[in-house]
Amino acid sequence: MATIQFRDPSPFLVRKQGGAPAPPPGDYVHTRYLEAMRLSPAPPKMEEIGVALCGCGRAGTIHMVNLVKNPRVRLLYVVEDAEERWPAIRAFWQLGDDTRLLRSKDLSTVLADARVQALVVATPTRSHEAIVTEALRARKAVFCEKPIASDLEGTRRCYRLAREVGRPLLCAFNRRFDPSFSQVRREVREGKVGHVHMIKTTSRDSPMPSLEYLETSGGIFCDCAVHDIDMVLWVLGELPRRVATIARSNIPEIDGIGDWDTVAITLDFPSGSVGFIDLSRRSNYGYDQRLEVFGPRGMVSCGNEHPTPGVRITTPDRVATSAPIWYSYPSRFAQGYARELEHFLDAVQGKTKLSVTSRQTEAVVKIAAALTNAARTGQAVDLEWGPEEQLLEEE
Amino acid sequence: MATIQFRDPSPFLVRKQGGAPAPPPGDYVHTRYLEAMRLSPAPPKMEEIGVALCGCGRAGTIHMVNLVKNPRVRLLYVVEDAEERWPAIRAFWQLGDDTRLLRSKDLSTVLADARVQALVVATPTRSHEAIVTEALRARKAVFCEKPIASDLEGTRRCYRLAREVGRPLLCAFNRRFDPSFSQVRREVREGKVGHVHMIKTTSRDSPMPSLEYLETSGGIFCDCAVHDIDMVLWVLGELPRRVATIARSNIPEIDGIGDWDTVAITLDFPSGSVGFIDLSRRSNYGYDQRLEVFGPRGMVSCGNEHPTPGVRITTPDRVATSAPIWYSYPSRFAQGYARELEHFLDAVQGKTKLSVTSRQTEAVVKIAAALTNAARTGQAVDLEWGPEEQLLEEE
Amino acid sequence: MATIQFRDPSPFLVRKQGGAPAPPPGDYVHTRYLEAMRLSPAPPKMEEIGVALCGCGRAGTIHMVNLVKNPRVRLLYVVEDAEERWPAIRAFWQLGDDTRLLRSKDLSTVLADARVQALVVATPTRSHEAIVTEALRARKAVFCEKPIASDLEGTRRCYRLAREVGRPLLCAFNRRFDPSFSQVRREVREGKVGHVHMIKTTSRDSPMPSLEYLETSGGIFCDCAVHDIDMVLWVLGELPRRVATIARSNIPEIDGIGDWDTVAITLDFPSGSVGFIDLSRRSNYGYDQRLEVFGPRGMVSCGNEHPTPGVRITTPDRVATSAPIWYSYPSRFAQGYARELEHFLDAVQGKTKLSVTSRQTEAVVKIAAALTNAARTGQAVDLEWGPEEQLLEEE
Amino acid sequence: MATIQFRDPSPFLVRKQGGAPAPPPGDYVHTRYLEAMRLSPAPPKMEEIGVALCGCGRAGTIHMVNLVKNPRVRLLYVVEDAEERWPAIRAFWQLGDDTRLLRSKDLSTVLADARVQALVVATPTRSHEAIVTEALRARKAVFCEKPIASDLEGTRRCYRLAREVGRPLLCAFNRRFDPSFSQVRREVREGKVGHVHMIKTTSRDSPMPSLEYLETSGGIFCDCAVHDIDMVLWVLGELPRRVATIARSNIPEIDGIGDWDTVAITLDFPSGSVGFIDLSRRSNYGYDQRLEVFGPRGMVSCGNEHPTPGVRITTPDRVATSAPIWYSYPSRFAQGYARELEHFLDAVQGKTKLSVTSRQTEAVVKIAAALTNAARTGQAVDLEWGPEEQLLEEE
Repeated sequence: MATIQFRDPSPFLVRKQGGAPAPPPGDYVHTRYLEAMRLSPAPPKMEEIGVALCGCGRAGTIHMVNLVKNPRVRLLYVVEDAEERWPAIRAFWQLGDDTRLLRSKDLSTVLADARVQALVVATPTRSHEAIVTEALRARKAVFCEKPIASDLEGTRRCYRLAREVGRPLLCAFNRRFDPSFSQVRREVREGKVGHVHMIKTTSRDSPMPSLEYLETSGGIFCDCAVHDIDMVLWVLGELPRRVATIARSNIPEIDGIGDWDTVAITLDFPSGSVGFIDLSRRSNYGYDQRLEVFGPRGMVSCGNEHPTPGVRITTPDRVATSAPIWYSYPSRFAQGYARELEHFLDAVQGKTKLSVTSRQTEAVVKIAAALTNAARTGQAVDLEWGPEEQLLEEE
Repeated sequence: MATIQFRDPSPFLVRKQGGAPAPPPGDYVHTRYLEAMRLSPAPPKMEEIGVALCGCGRAGTIHMVNLVKNPRVRLLYVVEDAEERWPAIRAFWQLGDDTRLLRSKDLSTVLADARVQALVVATPTRSHEAIVTEALRARKAVFCEKPIASDLEGTRRCYRLAREVGRPLLCAFNRRFDPSFSQVRREVREGKVGHVHMIKTTSRDSPMPSLEYLETSGGIFCDCAVHDIDMVLWVLGELPRRVATIARSNIPEIDGIGDWDTVAITLDFPSGSVGFIDLSRRSNYGYDQRLEVFGPRGMVSCGNEHPTPGVRITTPDRVATSAPIWYSYPSRFAQGYARELEHFLDAVQGKTKLSVTSRQTEAVVKIAAALTNAARTGQAVDLEWGPEEQLLEEE
Repeated sequence: MATIQFRDPSPFLVRKQGGAPAPPPGDYVHTRYLEAMRLSPAPPKMEEIGVALCGCGRAGTIHMVNLVKNPRVRLLYVVEDAEERWPAIRAFWQLGDDTRLLRSKDLSTVLADARVQALVVATPTRSHEAIVTEALRARKAVFCEKPIASDLEGTRRCYRLAREVGRPLLCAFNRRFDPSFSQVRREVREGKVGHVHMIKTTSRDSPMPSLEYLETSGGIFCDCAVHDIDMVLWVLGELPRRVATIARSNIPEIDGIGDWDTVAITLDFPSGSVGFIDLSRRSNYGYDQRLEVFGPRGMVSCGNEHPTPGVRITTPDRVATSAPIWYSYPSRFAQGYARELEHFLDAVQGKTKLSVTSRQTEAVVKIAAALTNAARTGQAVDLEWGPEEQLLEEE
Repeated sequence: MATIQFRDPSPFLVRKQGGAPAPPPGDYVHTRYLEAMRLSPAPPKMEEIGVALCGCGRAGTIHMVNLVKNPRVRLLYVVEDAEERWPAIRAFWQLGDDTRLLRSKDLSTVLADARVQALVVATPTRSHEAIVTEALRARKAVFCEKPIASDLEGTRRCYRLAREVGRPLLCAFNRRFDPSFSQVRREVREGKVGHVHMIKTTSRDSPMPSLEYLETSGGIFCDCAVHDIDMVLWVLGELPRRVATIARSNIPEIDGIGDWDTVAITLDFPSGSVGFIDLSRRSNYGYDQRLEVFGPRGMVSCGNEHPTPGVRITTPDRVATSAPIWYSYPSRFAQGYARELEHFLDAVQGKTKLSVTSRQTEAVVKIAAALTNAARTGQAVDLEWGPEEQLLEEE
């Protein structure tokens, strides 16, 4: 009876004496359940936010899911140019009479409607800056898929306007809102690895986008790398002094449009941190999204996630998962998309400041542009940052 | 250049020729996204189901989450005896004027309302049979937390009544609707392990329930083991000929109420399959829920899941997850709860038959009762099954 | 530069001040390397132990590997009846003139040789007791594959004789010497899980033994379950008061010889611990060996190990290991076999007491016999233990 | 009885009909066991190889382990300048009268001994070229820790001499002989990932070397990166056209000697493959050694390995391994060291050609030198390769 010596006091006794441990803060679903059980904090008195969704394609569909079942959203408009899809959109999403469908040329109707407080912009990239600008001028809050504009100047103009009109403008860097990625950042910012010596991200796309998309995407640095650059800067809170890249086109059609499909980026930071980003336009095994942060105190990393994470098939050949990793961003970042929308709605209601600052978005755009140059010239690029720019995390 | 020999045709070419692989069926979130992208299958024309939720406690709160944001549900009543909680319930869940709050003594009001098509019963166990019976008599569909009744006879009466009135009665065995557990069953039923030789489940509760709850729970076999028995029968499609158990009380207060906290169950099946169930009333490291199925062709298993599954903290002492496993059922089975409600709503709308058959629920109750006896006497119990009972998966 | 705040003092400075951490004790290979680097502890002055290996079959071959390259062993005899294999044995193992090959009928020659200090017995089961007895009478130390004898009485006789002649007799329960299993036991004995509530082992054989072997194996309880029973007792330090089993024959030929291939064993311990053992004669995916210990403070478990544990193959279908788990005992327990021999040699040289006590081996044999009865009768068996027997871990 | 339909023919029947599967080739320990069971292939008739070990420090101690218990080695000399350690060396390793201990100034005695066929060189780096040269001139086979010489010219001279005298010269790139790393290469060379798009290695040292060692190490590129460069080239079979690096010194003392502790290397290959190497001189959580190879058909990767890989400790805070990853190279690459020695002995006996070709070693040295320059100048370096150099894998 060797282990009976370890018998502890009854857990009922411990509980009665207040010694029972609290549920782990990491179980964010249970945390929400506990709030629901004690019915607190109650949401502010029923103030629905009037929202217009612009674009109902790849990204818009993701946001639609989170808008239609959101108790604090009143979806007033869906702006979608493919008029032939309107009946199906209305039927599939069970849109009520409340919700009007319009074409983008009628955006002014949306902006003139005083009930509309916020726009979710998920239209093709080239239209972003114009919509953002008009919406801000109409004093609407704007949630915009990246990029906000096609270049740094446009991005700055948009943020300047947002500050002038005093409305939130969120550049939707969805990965920040993923529970796992944000857990990594939290650990790093609490000093778990110490001063970061090496930070690495992997982003390999799945499925490979269409050539049509790629032709207008702005290139792999502006279309893909921006997410990774944002992640690195968000974790480190620091701006690189020098960046370099090896960019290759292993897929002939991508070479044909002057873009690259296989990219290695290095970033050199003043404090001694080194960044490495590894990108591919096509992963055949699913949407490969990883992050690793290394320092003298240890390492915090985030690997890929799976649809049925605990299931294993054990056969004479191998031990295997029953499914590959998540196939693409709508599934991998389903929680991230939901959370970023909630964050935006909180900002619209004045409950929080936006966590994606204008300075950081602008820095990301500047770095992506520098890397595009680096890929073309084959040379590393030195970056200079003004004192303003360095206040990365302040708005 | 040793690997260039493996260069494949361009993936764009493969895609154009129709050779691109479909997204993996295992990524169920992406599957839903694809449906949303093509706006099909559209839901049936806007037929909201009028629902009453009975009980707003531990289980009711879980269902509330899935009811309030469900586009096909119109929550007409919340039946809750703690009247002092009503204002908070109304505020927290942002219930509109549509939704009335009532006490259970006013259930007849609910049942008399023709708009109410379905009841979700999440009241204390002892009240289940009466509510189920009244609701069925009023020709309402019923979703009922287990157990439907306090014994086998009551359970049979309820199902008989359901058949008579022709309304669905769902015993809410939520684990079946978990993506991972159902993936295990699917693999087994496709022959992945061959004829099952051994099936094992582990269910260790977290947090330990209160003594008040335990006193009226019906005992660990009827309160906990039923989930595991249902899982074993659901995977195997077979009824045991003999069951045995070792049941111990390591926690004095649980011994004091004549219940057990540590239980090992063995089940002997005619085909040669052997079942093993391992239960504990208290796991301090989270809600431990596992399933393993072994046969001559291999093994399929399902381990525990985590809030941030890919995050690892690597330090001089160890490599560790950043969070323990899910803390309790509301988080571990969040998807299962949502899916079982959808399944019920589908059945209410006549789109599907209930997957939890009356025969299986009755068999589970019969086995749990036999095991309670086995625990008391210390003897194995032989079970006999009529020809009707053996049609386990038929309604 | 958010993480530079975490910059620590230089590790060289910390090292100079004596603050550098010691290598982790868990890295047992590094621990041996450090001893080799500082050339200490030196082995006792070159006292080779004269050894005879009896049997050069399935088990004998495993021990041969560890004997021929062992600096403190002088292999004087190999006793092997298959005389036609002698030249190949001599050639393959590069046996020198020092080593004689003999048939078992000439065992007396071995025992009469004063240089022989120890026998390693790996002959067929039925011959064990006779060889052990003769060897002990000749005052040789004996390392014997389990079982030492065919029944409890024989086992007791052997141990009694060993005590009388004062020579070590080791029943080779190899799993105890596996680094991972012994780590589990160490954690449990240090209180990591508290008072054990549940202990589970899984042992599924690979490859399935031949029918010839099975016919003389003594049955699955005496041939297989003994390892698991020993493990459970060794971890718990406690004797069961009651055991039960479900034993089935899913393979017709095994049914034909009155044995079982699929077995579930439950053990009920006085302290409140519950044991569960799951056995199969045939796992097609490799040698499945697991251990799990659960208590109120947590869980310690040991899963399967792999030949190339870190290698993952990620494809559109799955993430998989590159190889199945270890195929069988010679590879899975390679380290355990080497360590148990070292332990025995240490005991021969008087450096340690045997960790496998006679009382524990006798208890294991008694339980295995009770379970064989339980399988035949279908009834649980109560076990009584004398005060002597309960001093399980004392010799 | 849903799964009985999957009942297969008896495995005894399948076995009798020759249908039983062979043991998995990935279980290399079982493969050796099967050879031992059938006593074939027998080693060539007892031809012991006379060996001298030069240097009994960090690396020499590792080789000593594999030499003293090696049946085909006769250790004739240990050359070690620390004469005061001789008695301890003799005692610890139980060296017999066969083995002489000498100082390095008496190397000529060793080389004049006709019984000595091979030298294992594990002396300080700066002495390598001289010893290698003398040994080859004396027509001894040489196993040499990297580097063979302090620069490319010296390396070429050594290999030229080896070809002239017709004796094997092995540059001991131990990682190639690790079962897991070599499994990754095998999978890649069989086309598992297709044309490699990205190959990444991580090598983070543990424990941090002493400053004394670092001062004479030749710098992180020549001392550490060579292993990774060799790995990348060995997997790809291709030479880079351009390399670049970010090299930083986060540890002041390492900055003080003009070296770097944190390094990111990128390699650009003509075929379109991109390489990335991530180095640190100090990992506090053990010896971090990883490899990942990505291509259009999938990914093959190798993560870290653990002393007790299957053991998990599950507590309220986390699920964790019981030990960190292997602490350092003697434990992580224990098998690699043993295998590379066996490979060398096979080459000495003419059974195989060396797998580490002179051209590859020379290419590795050339790349490491280019990277050292790149680190100093901050510029990428273009590499040109003659037609001879490109026959990388031919001797």
